Amino acid sequence: MSPPAAVDEIVASAATSGPLAVEGIPALRAKSAPIPTGVAPAVNSDMFKSQHCYTKPKSKRWDHVFSVESKSRKSSTLKEAARYLKNPGLISLGGGLPSPEYFPFEQISVKVPTVPGFTPEETRNSGAVLTASKGDVREGKSIFDLEVALNYGQASGTPQLLRFVTEHTELIHNPPYSDWQCCLTPGSTYAWDSILRMLCNRGDYILMEEYTFSSAQETALPLGVKVAPVGMDGQGLLPESLDEVLSNWDEAARGASKPHVLYTIPTGQNPTGATQSAERRKAVYQVAQKHDVFIVEDEPYYFLQMQPYAGPDSEPVPPPASHHEFIKSLVPSYLSLDVDGRVLRVESFSKVLSPGSRTGWIVASEQVVERFARTLEASAQNPSGIVQLVFFKLLDEHWGHAGYLDWLINLRMQYTGRRDTMMHACENYLPGDIAKWIPPAAGMFHWIEVDWKKHPGLASGKTRGEIEEEVFHAAVNNGVLVSRGSWFRAAGASEENMFFRATFAAASSDGIAEAIHRFGDALRAQFGL
Amino acid sequence: MSPPAAVDEIVASAATSGPLAVEGIPALRAKSAPIPTGVAPAVNSDMFKSQHCYTKPKSKRWDHVFSVESKSRKSSTLKEAARYLKNPGLISLGGGLPSPEYFPFEQISVKVPTVPGFTPEETRNSGAVLTASKGDVREGKSIFDLEVALNYGQASGTPQLLRFVTEHTELIHNPPYSDWQCCLTPGSTYAWDSILRMLCNRGDYILMEEYTFSSAQETALPLGVKVAPVGMDGQGLLPESLDEVLSNWDEAARGASKPHVLYTIPTGQNPTGATQSAERRKAVYQVAQKHDVFIVEDEPYYFLQMQPYAGPDSEPVPPPASHHEFIKSLVPSYLSLDVDGRVLRVESFSKVLSPGSRTGWIVASEQVVERFARTLEASAQNPSGIVQLVFFKLLDEHWGHAGYLDWLINLRMQYTGRRDTMMHACENYLPGDIAKWIPPAAGMFHWIEVDWKKHPGLASGKTRGEIEEEVFHAAVNNGVLVSRGSWFRAAGASEENMFFRATFAAASSDGIAEAIHRFGDALRAQFGL
Repeated sequence: MSPPAAVDEIVASAATSGPLAVEGIPALRAKSAPIPTGVAPAVNSDMFKSQHCYTKPKSKRWDHVFSVESKSRKSSTLKEAARYLKNPGLISLGGGLPSPEYFPFEQISVKVPTVPGFTPEETRNSGAVLTASKGDVREGKSIFDLEVALNYGQASGTPQLLRFVTEHTELIHNPPYSDWQCCLTPGSTYAWDSILRMLCNRGDYILMEEYTFSSAQETALPLGVKVAPVGMDGQGLLPESLDEVLSNWDEAARGASKPHVLYTIPTGQNPTGATQSAERRKAVYQVAQKHDVFIVEDEPYYFLQMQPYAGPDSEPVPPPASHHEFIKSLVPSYLSLDVDGRVLRVESFSKVLSPGSRTGWIVASEQVVERFARTLEASAQNPSGIVQLVFFKLLDEHWGHAGYLDWLINLRMQYTGRRDTMMHACENYLPGDIAKWIPPAAGMFHWIEVDWKKHPGLASGKTRGEIEEEVFHAAVNNGVLVSRGSWFRAAGASEENMFFRATFAAASSDGIAEAIHRFGDALRAQFGL
Repeated sequence: MSPPAAVDEIVASAATSGPLAVEGIPALRAKSAPIPTGVAPAVNSDMFKSQHCYTKPKSKRWDHVFSVESKSRKSSTLKEAARYLKNPGLISLGGGLPSPEYFPFEQISVKVPTVPGFTPEETRNSGAVLTASKGDVREGKSIFDLEVALNYGQASGTPQLLRFVTEHTELIHNPPYSDWQCCLTPGSTYAWDSILRMLCNRGDYILMEEYTFSSAQETALPLGVKVAPVGMDGQGLLPESLDEVLSNWDEAARGASKPHVLYTIPTGQNPTGATQSAERRKAVYQVAQKHDVFIVEDEPYYFLQMQPYAGPDSEPVPPPASHHEFIKSLVPSYLSLDVDGRVLRVESFSKVLSPGSRTGWIVASEQVVERFARTLEASAQNPSGIVQLVFFKLLDEHWGHAGYLDWLINLRMQYTGRRDTMMHACENYLPGDIAKWIPPAAGMFHWIEVDWKKHPGLASGKTRGEIEEEVFHAAVNNGVLVSRGSWFRAAGASEENMFFRATFAAASSDGIAEAIHRFGDALRAQFGL
């Protein structure tokens, strides 16, 4: 095995050579083989990657990380038989595909924004109506149609949407090894459940941030997977803490071998809102290399990276001037640093298009994606073909990569405005002597630390947990719902401080200000200020 | 515990009292509480069932059937917190729901058939265009809209589609206990994977038909779940064989306790096409009661029950004259016989609306559905909201229950025609001295037994498997793909006979005849006839 490439070299080279740009996509597609347009063709991302990818070394092998369940998965017998369908003139009585005449949908249309008119009002007045019919492929109108979308599909997704996410992945992350693959998923929660099944046996530990997305932990525990919490600061996961947990792992005391999987939300972390800097990620990656840990980066908030917070009286920071500048402004993902292929990136459309779509994708090495797809085809099979078609019409046929980046820049500015509204409200209404926070750089969440040791209940023996509960109910009774920090605490993490999570994603601007006002009043009343 | 009710009594009473009919639905809805129309409301089927359901006894408890994984599942912390949202005037900064202005879809439309013009041509010419916009609920235009569909949902599904499937379940199956529930699923393959996780630990055996849907077995094996095959005849699963396997179960020899889960495809079984009669189902249910076995009935082909096969020269049998007659003509489901609540019915829209929807549902007792939903909310969450909305627009707002039954009757006649085409082709083209079959009464599959002992290769020592492979390739080389029977054999089942599976669901009428002609020629050449 060759020595691991230095992370810094890779980052420098990726930043300067910039192999695939938005402008290069038409040429890339023109050079590729025609995209298969039939029912459930078996394809993978290799068909859609630029030649530049193949100049890179291959990922390492990960045979040692798969679970007993995952190792025993085989290809689907019936999907294997589909290879005979390529024989010209063959009539198939083999598969169980229903005939499309029995799908009672002839046409589907969606009304969507046209760049740059992204608001609902602009869309209603001047949006585009995108239409797909059953026979569009046959009639040469499109490379994807309703007849195909309504039928069975492959686990990796339809070639048409898989191409878009593969190109997008190369544009944004440009992984430093050659054999990466994408696979569509029916949502990130599904993906995480499958990843746990793929990488962990009952009794295994995984590493998680000490405060983490409660559902991610709740997905792991019933599988018999335990959590080893890792310390955090304002930038999230601490590499020193990660190294310490792994270096001092006591197999006998823990009753389990050293964890080989790290789950992290690097950008706009849920619940803390923390974003790991590039330097932080490199340090974490090096610790992962040292202990041979596989990294799962769950990144729903990656494109909710906002403009810098300029303080209460400053002018807003203008949006990025170009797609290139926008992409350059994004913090590097673990995937973009991943010289070993030890990262599985979980991507989501939930925060940038729609959570109700239940459609996202993952990126990892070919070996890992192959195992993931085997799990998928024996459970959810693939995200809904109807959604894949609608997303293809919007992302590929209507917006293209450039329009999608414009949409993401628009979202950045929208979320920046929401975040700023909440920061201003906190500055105006929260009692500064007991509440403190760091303005979040990404995501939907604001993490407010409250100094529970100043609570009058402490004198009468109330615990930290009781005080948190009291404050929570006082806030609810004063008309504002926030989330309790303890809901997000990883099992086994110590809990010295008290936090509340507030989201700026949903309420109106006025609502955000009013809600923080109410929370501030509840805090003052609780703390006798 | 009270003694089990006699299956016969229940069936007789359900058949005569007929508590909920299509015509009764408007009155039922009028008496119910208003359906919740917000984002992700927590509801269950109880809200939509008729009063008649509550006159029945409750199901048994099934605490003893759940797996270690399932028993340890808890409710989602964050979903629990949503109950505070009911406080009037409360501003939520609690959840992580994105604001709908950031979902770039203002409107969705589908063009669908209007009763009775069900063909694609009629739909293109005179179908209805159903439209949903973001603000339909706010504007009083509908009880379900795009804004809600695009956001997060609950595991049991949106109330709007859950109501339809609950009513449909009562209309068709009218379960003989009171506390049954429905839960939407992202497809039956997903449901089966989750059911295995819910009911089985590694090392457990499940009971399956000796020839079964290969993917169903491939889903079980990596979970460490082994298969105990049960014998079949032309009506499918044999109760005597089931009883024998269970009565003679040797824990020591098998290294596992007696199986407590039976997986069966009772109607139009895949691959054999066999349909269990009402008498057969009652006998199987009684064996399940005797050995306390929980039954999973996987029923994608239930509404592909066809008109009786009348032979080559007979007139086609006319369609059912009314909805009542149609419902009466359906073979009773296990669910409709289920006095104990020991049945989990897996329902699918794949064969009757679209497999690409990845949307179906399950029916079982409240206790079982609750455990199922806990698995779902920690993995796929729910089927796509976009699909749920489109199905609601078609099934509920446009067709209603009556129109959906008309569609199902239409499908029956279409499949009857396809089945008849294949039967006629088999009668014309297959060599009767080596090929035999039973005309299927339901489903998509025709199961052809070929007498491999008459193959000339036998003399030169070829095995059954080698002859099967040779015949398969001879057919492919002659331009027809059929499926090999051995692909569907349950692990451990003996294999004395040789079968091929041919589907009449996909190819055109001419294609079916030509394909069977080619298969017949290949057989003749192979067998030297």
